[in-house]
Amino acid sequence: MNHKNFITDNFLLQSKEAETLYHEYAKSMPIIDYHNHLSPKQIAENKPFRNITKAWLGGDHYKWRAMRTNGVDEALITGDTSSLEDKFKTWAETVPYTLRNPLFHWTHLELKRYFDIDDILQPGTANDIYKKANAVLAVKTPADILQDMNVEVVCTTDDPIDSLEYHKQIAELNIFTKVYPSFRPDKLFLINESSFPDYIEKLEACAECSIHTITDLLKAIENRMDFFASHGCKVSDYGLEQIYVVDFAEAEADQVFKKRLSGKMLSNEESEIYCSFLQYNFSKLYHKKGWIQQFHLGAIRNNNRRLGTLLGNDSGCDSIGDFTYAKAMSKFFNRLDYEGVLTKTICYNLNPTQNEVFATMMGNYSEVGIPGKMQFGTGWWFLDQKDGMEKQMNTLSNMGLLSRFVGMLTDSRSFLSFPRHEYFRRILCNMIADDLNNGLVPDDIDFLGKMIQDICYNNAKNYFNFE
Amino acid sequence: MNHKNFITDNFLLQSKEAETLYHEYAKSMPIIDYHNHLSPKQIAENKPFRNITKAWLGGDHYKWRAMRTNGVDEALITGDTSSLEDKFKTWAETVPYTLRNPLFHWTHLELKRYFDIDDILQPGTANDIYKKANAVLAVKTPADILQDMNVEVVCTTDDPIDSLEYHKQIAELNIFTKVYPSFRPDKLFLINESSFPDYIEKLEACAECSIHTITDLLKAIENRMDFFASHGCKVSDYGLEQIYVVDFAEAEADQVFKKRLSGKMLSNEESEIYCSFLQYNFSKLYHKKGWIQQFHLGAIRNNNRRLGTLLGNDSGCDSIGDFTYAKAMSKFFNRLDYEGVLTKTICYNLNPTQNEVFATMMGNYSEVGIPGKMQFGTGWWFLDQKDGMEKQMNTLSNMGLLSRFVGMLTDSRSFLSFPRHEYFRRILCNMIADDLNNGLVPDDIDFLGKMIQDICYNNAKNYFNFE
Amino acid sequence: MNHKNFITDNFLLQSKEAETLYHEYAKSMPIIDYHNHLSPKQIAENKPFRNITKAWLGGDHYKWRAMRTNGVDEALITGDTSSLEDKFKTWAETVPYTLRNPLFHWTHLELKRYFDIDDILQPGTANDIYKKANAVLAVKTPADILQDMNVEVVCTTDDPIDSLEYHKQIAELNIFTKVYPSFRPDKLFLINESSFPDYIEKLEACAECSIHTITDLLKAIENRMDFFASHGCKVSDYGLEQIYVVDFAEAEADQVFKKRLSGKMLSNEESEIYCSFLQYNFSKLYHKKGWIQQFHLGAIRNNNRRLGTLLGNDSGCDSIGDFTYAKAMSKFFNRLDYEGVLTKTICYNLNPTQNEVFATMMGNYSEVGIPGKMQFGTGWWFLDQKDGMEKQMNTLSNMGLLSRFVGMLTDSRSFLSFPRHEYFRRILCNMIADDLNNGLVPDDIDFLGKMIQDICYNNAKNYFNFE
Repeated sequence: MNHKNFITDNFLLQSKEAETLYHEYAKSMPIIDYHNHLSPKQIAENKPFRNITKAWLGGDHYKWRAMRTNGVDEALITGDTSSLEDKFKTWAETVPYTLRNPLFHWTHLELKRYFDIDDILQPGTANDIYKKANAVLAVKTPADILQDMNVEVVCTTDDPIDSLEYHKQIAELNIFTKVYPSFRPDKLFLINESSFPDYIEKLEACAECSIHTITDLLKAIENRMDFFASHGCKVSDYGLEQIYVVDFAEAEADQVFKKRLSGKMLSNEESEIYCSFLQYNFSKLYHKKGWIQQFHLGAIRNNNRRLGTLLGNDSGCDSIGDFTYAKAMSKFFNRLDYEGVLTKTICYNLNPTQNEVFATMMGNYSEVGIPGKMQFGTGWWFLDQKDGMEKQMNTLSNMGLLSRFVGMLTDSRSFLSFPRHEYFRRILCNMIADDLNNGLVPDDIDFLGKMIQDICYNNAKNYFNFE
Repeated sequence: MNHKNFITDNFLLQSKEAETLYHEYAKSMPIIDYHNHLSPKQIAENKPFRNITKAWLGGDHYKWRAMRTNGVDEALITGDTSSLEDKFKTWAETVPYTLRNPLFHWTHLELKRYFDIDDILQPGTANDIYKKANAVLAVKTPADILQDMNVEVVCTTDDPIDSLEYHKQIAELNIFTKVYPSFRPDKLFLINESSFPDYIEKLEACAECSIHTITDLLKAIENRMDFFASHGCKVSDYGLEQIYVVDFAEAEADQVFKKRLSGKMLSNEESEIYCSFLQYNFSKLYHKKGWIQQFHLGAIRNNNRRLGTLLGNDSGCDSIGDFTYAKAMSKFFNRLDYEGVLTKTICYNLNPTQNEVFATMMGNYSEVGIPGKMQFGTGWWFLDQKDGMEKQMNTLSNMGLLSRFVGMLTDSRSFLSFPRHEYFRRILCNMIADDLNNGLVPDDIDFLGKMIQDICYNNAKNYFNFE
Repeated sequence: MNHKNFITDNFLLQSKEAETLYHEYAKSMPIIDYHNHLSPKQIAENKPFRNITKAWLGGDHYKWRAMRTNGVDEALITGDTSSLEDKFKTWAETVPYTLRNPLFHWTHLELKRYFDIDDILQPGTANDIYKKANAVLAVKTPADILQDMNVEVVCTTDDPIDSLEYHKQIAELNIFTKVYPSFRPDKLFLINESSFPDYIEKLEACAECSIHTITDLLKAIENRMDFFASHGCKVSDYGLEQIYVVDFAEAEADQVFKKRLSGKMLSNEESEIYCSFLQYNFSKLYHKKGWIQQFHLGAIRNNNRRLGTLLGNDSGCDSIGDFTYAKAMSKFFNRLDYEGVLTKTICYNLNPTQNEVFATMMGNYSEVGIPGKMQFGTGWWFLDQKDGMEKQMNTLSNMGLLSRFVGMLTDSRSFLSFPRHEYFRRILCNMIADDLNNGLVPDDIDFLGKMIQDICYNNAKNYFNFE
C-alpha cells in the first residue's frame, strides 16, 4: 500500500472550521482518562517497554480477533513458542486487511504519535517499523508515555481485595500523571462460582473482619471502599451483563448469602436476590462516599469455550448482546432517586440499538447544582470508533445535553492507546464543524470551541473533581 | 453567542434545489395538525396569551427536562414561587447548553416566526426577548396564532367522558381553523387502577346508561363515539405501552370486567384478557364508524416517582422503552384484516430501532382504493427532530411508499409549536434535493415538488377527509 | 416524470474516484450468485421468456407489496382474470409512487441493462416499454440472460426430497453458467405441521430407506446430502425464525420423533428438542461434507392470513421481526467450535438493529487458514438496498474484516434481478471512494480496487471453491 501522508495534521478534519476547532481548541487540552485497564504494576515499576510486540500486542484482544478472523494460527497471536518479531510480522500481514476497521486508524495514529512513523504497516515495512519502534521503547517508561500524551489523570480498574500496593508506590514516584484506583466489585456478584467462598475469605483477610452475614459483608465492603478512597479512589465500575433489580428483603438476602457460605449452590432466583441486594447497597454506599458509579452494559462475554479454556477471560471472544435494559434501569435509578441516594452515574452501552434508551433514561433523573449528573457514556468497546462515537454523540445531542458530556476515556489495556483521545477529539471537532457549515449551529466558532474544550476536559474535571 | 443570521430563509436547505422545493412547493401548503394536545378550553376562551413564559414554558416538559439536566432547581422550572420572568431567564440560561438538541432549533424558529426575533436566546438577550415577545402576545389569541400559521385543521386529544363543551363553543366561534376532538380511551385500559370504578360511573353518567356487563361497556363506548362523531371526530389514539393480543372469549372478558366492577383487583392474566377484548372491539368500532386509529408505541413512562408525585404524569420523566412489537402487531392486524374490519391505522414509534419493524409490518395489510391505508407515522416525541425524522422517512422510503405518507403533526401541548411543520418540510425538501443532486431520483423538480406537497398536505387531506 | 439520463454510466458514483473504482475494477468481475430462488426447471427448459409481465411480475412479491400499498386491486396483481398487459400497466402506474424505494432503482436499472430502455416507467411510457421489452424477451432464454450478465455460478434453493432432475438436465445443456443446487431442509423442522408424516414418507422414498428412529432420519438426510453433493451442491440454507439450541439428549429427540411419527402432536418443548437435535446434527454433517451453512434470520412470516390463504407463502406478507439472537448463536456456534465441527457459516440478518450483534458474534469463531470463515452476510431482503447494504458493510468494517467479505447474492426469484450485483458494486465503490476522499483510507486506488475485486468475486470464489 502507498505510504505517503496518511496520518496528516488534518486527519479526520474535513473542513477549515474543523481544523480550527481541533488545533486551536481541542488539541492542547490535557487528558483525564477516568476509566482504563492499565497495569498499576507496570506504572509502579516504571521500566522501559523495550519491545513493541509486548507493548502493543501483548494484551490487545482487538488485534487478536482481527488476526484470528484473518485465519492466523493462535501460536502467532498469543502463543509462547513464537518470537516477538514473528508475532509483529504476523500483525503487519494482517493490518492491510483491517482497512475500514478502527484498528487501521489506531495502528497508524499510534505509530505516528509515539514513534513518528508515517509508513503504512504491512509486510514490506514491518522490519523497519519494528526496529524504529523498539529503539524508542528502549528508553520510554510508562510514566514518560503518560506525560508525553499530556495525561493528567488515570483511573485503573481494581478489585476490592487488591492491596493497592502499586498505587502506593506510584504515589511515591511523584510522576506527572495522577494515578487512582477504581473499584470494580464484579466478583462479589459471582456468588455461584466455585471460587466465591475463597473470594469472601480473602475479603475477610484484607478488611480484617469476619463475614458471616450480609451485614458483615456490607461492612467489609465499606471498609475496602474507605481504603480505596484513602488512595484517591472516587469511581466505581461494573462489567456485568445486567442491572439486578428483583424485589428483595434484607433478611432474604442474608439467608441466601449464608446458604452459599455454607457451601450450597443457589437457584437463579436466590442468586438474583443476593445480587439485587448488593447492587442497591453498593449504590447507596457510593452515594454516601460521593463516588461516581459506572455501568458497562450490553456485552455478551466468553462465547468461545475453546479459546477461553486456553487463554481465560478478556481474550477476544466477547461480543455485542441484544439484552433489554429500560425496565431495570428505570426501577433501579427510580428507587435510588426517590430515596435521595442516587449518586452521579455513567452508563456505557455496547449495542448501538440501545443508544436512545440509555440517553433518554439518564434524562429522567437530575439534581440541583449538578449539571449532567446522569451521563450516557461515550461509545464503548466495539463502538469506540468513528461511527460509534458519532452515533453516541448524535443521540446524546438529540435527547440530552451534549454540552454537559464528560467525554472520552480509553478503557484500554495498553499504554499506546492514548491517541484514541485525539481520535475522539478530531471526530467531535469535525462533527461540530459540519453543523456549522450546514447552518445547524450559530456561526460563533469561539462558543463552539469552548463547548468542545468542556467535552474534552473541563466537564470531566468538574464532574470527577479529583484531588 | 453570536446573534446574526441563524434562522435564515434557507435554514436547513443545503442546496439550491432544496430552496426551490421548499419555497416554491412546500412552504405555502396549509397545515393539518391531526394529532396534538392543545387545550380546547384555551381555544374556546380565545384570550390573548399575554406572557411568553406561560405560553412557552408552562406545559413544555421537553424544556423542563433540559433545565433539570442542566442542574436547575425545580422551583425555577415548575415551581409556584418563582416569577414568570425568573423562569424565562432560567430557560434563557439553559438554551446555550441545548446546542444540537432540537430545543435549540425549535426555540429560535419559534422566536423568529411568532415574534420576528433574530437573536439567540441567552442571558444577555433574555430581557429584550421577554419584553418583545410579551408585547406580541398581549394581543394574540389562540385563534390568531392558528390562522397566522395557516392551520386548517387541529385535532385535540380528548377523553371519552369529556363533555366536548369547549369544542361546541369553538364551533360557534367560527374561526379560520377547524378544531376537532379525537378519542383517546387510554383510561378504559387501566382496569386495575383504583380510579377505574369511578371512571366507569362517569362513563355511565355521560353515556346515560348502566354498565354491568362488558356488552354494556361496549354500548356506552359506542354511544360516546357517536357523540364525538357529532362533533367532527374521526380519529382515535392510544398512548399505551403495548397492543393487547392475548386470546380471549367474550364470556371471559365479561367475567373479568364484572369481577373488577365488584371491587376486586385482577391478576395480570385477567387484566390482559379484558384489555385484549377492549383493544379488538375498539378497532372494530373504529372500522364501523370509518375512523382512523392511531397507536403511539414505544414509551416507558413515569420513571421518576419523586417528580411524578410532585407534578403528575407528562412532566418530563418518560423515556424510550425497548419493547418488542412485531408478534403483537402481526396477530392484531392480521385478525382484523382477516375479518374485514381493519380500519385505517397509523402506528408511531418511539424507539428508532423499531422503525424497520413498523414500516414493514404496515406493508402487510392493504385495501383496494385506499393508498397508504396503513401508515408508519412520523418521528414521534424524542424522534421528532432532524435525525429522527430523516430516519423515519428513509425507512419508510426503503420499505414502503413515502409518496403515500400522511406526514407531520405536532403532538404538542403548545400553540407555539407549529413551526415544527416548517421544520419537517425543510428537512423533507433537503432530503429530496440531496437525492436529486446525487442522481438518486430523476431530474424532475416539479414531480418531486408535487410529491412533497402530497406529503405536506394532500395525503393527509385525502386520508382523513375531514368535514 | 422527466425521462432523460436517469441510469447513466455513473449512476450512484458520486466522485471521480468512485467512477474509477467501479469502471476499472468492479464492473468486469464475473458474478457468483451463491444463493437465489431461480427455477431450475426454467433454466433446464431454456425457453425464451416472451413476456415481461411473466418474467418481471410473475413471482416478485416486492412489487406486489408496493402495488397493494398503493391501493391496487389484487386481481391486477396476482389475479388470473387480468391480462398480462393490464398487469404491466398497473405496475407502470405504481412505479412513480415507489420513488426512494429500491424498486424504483431496480426497475430502471433492469430496463436499462436487459432492454436498453432509458425511459422512466409510468403510464405514458408503459406501452412502448412493454413492446420493446417483449421484443427482446421473444428470443432470450434463461441461459442467454445468465451469460449476458456474466454469471459464472448460480446456486438455487432446493428441498432435500427434490429429485434434482432439472439440475441433471442443466448440467447436460453445457451452458456458460454453472448451476448448482443448495440444500434447504426447512420442512424437516416443521414437525408439528400436518404434512410432516407425509414429508417423511417422501424422504424415505427418495433416500430408499425406512425411517423409524431419529438415527434413521439422520441416515436418510446424509443420503440426500450425498446425492445433492453429486450434483455439485456445497451449500445449505435455512429460512427459519430462530436457531434451535435447547439442551437435548439423543434419546429424548428419538422419543419425540417417534411420538410424532405415531401421529401425535408435540408440545412446544418436545418440538424444540427435536429441532435442536436436528439443527446440531445438520451442522455436524455440513462440517463432515465440507459444506457452507447459511442462516437467514430475522423474518416474521405470513402475517396476512387473508392473502396467505389465497396465494400461499412468499406472496409479500412477510416483514421484519424483533427477535433476539445473541444467546442462541453463542450457544450454538460455541458448542460446534468446541467440538471441532463448526463449518464455514454465513448469517444473514433482516433487522438492521441486529447488525452489530451478528457482526461481532461471527468474530468469536475462527479457523487457521480460513480467512473470513464466519461471515456476516450481505443486506438481506428488505435490507437489500443502498441504505441497508451500506449499514451492513459499515458494521462489518467497524467490527470485523470487510476485506474478507464474500459479498453480494441476489436471493431473487427473477432472472431479471442480476443488476442488483451491479447496484451493490456501485454502492461499494462509492463508499470506498468517499473514504478515500475524506482521507479515511490511504491514497492507493489500486490497493482499494483490488480489495473491491475481492469482495465482488475473489473472496466468494475462494470461500465456496465450486468445482
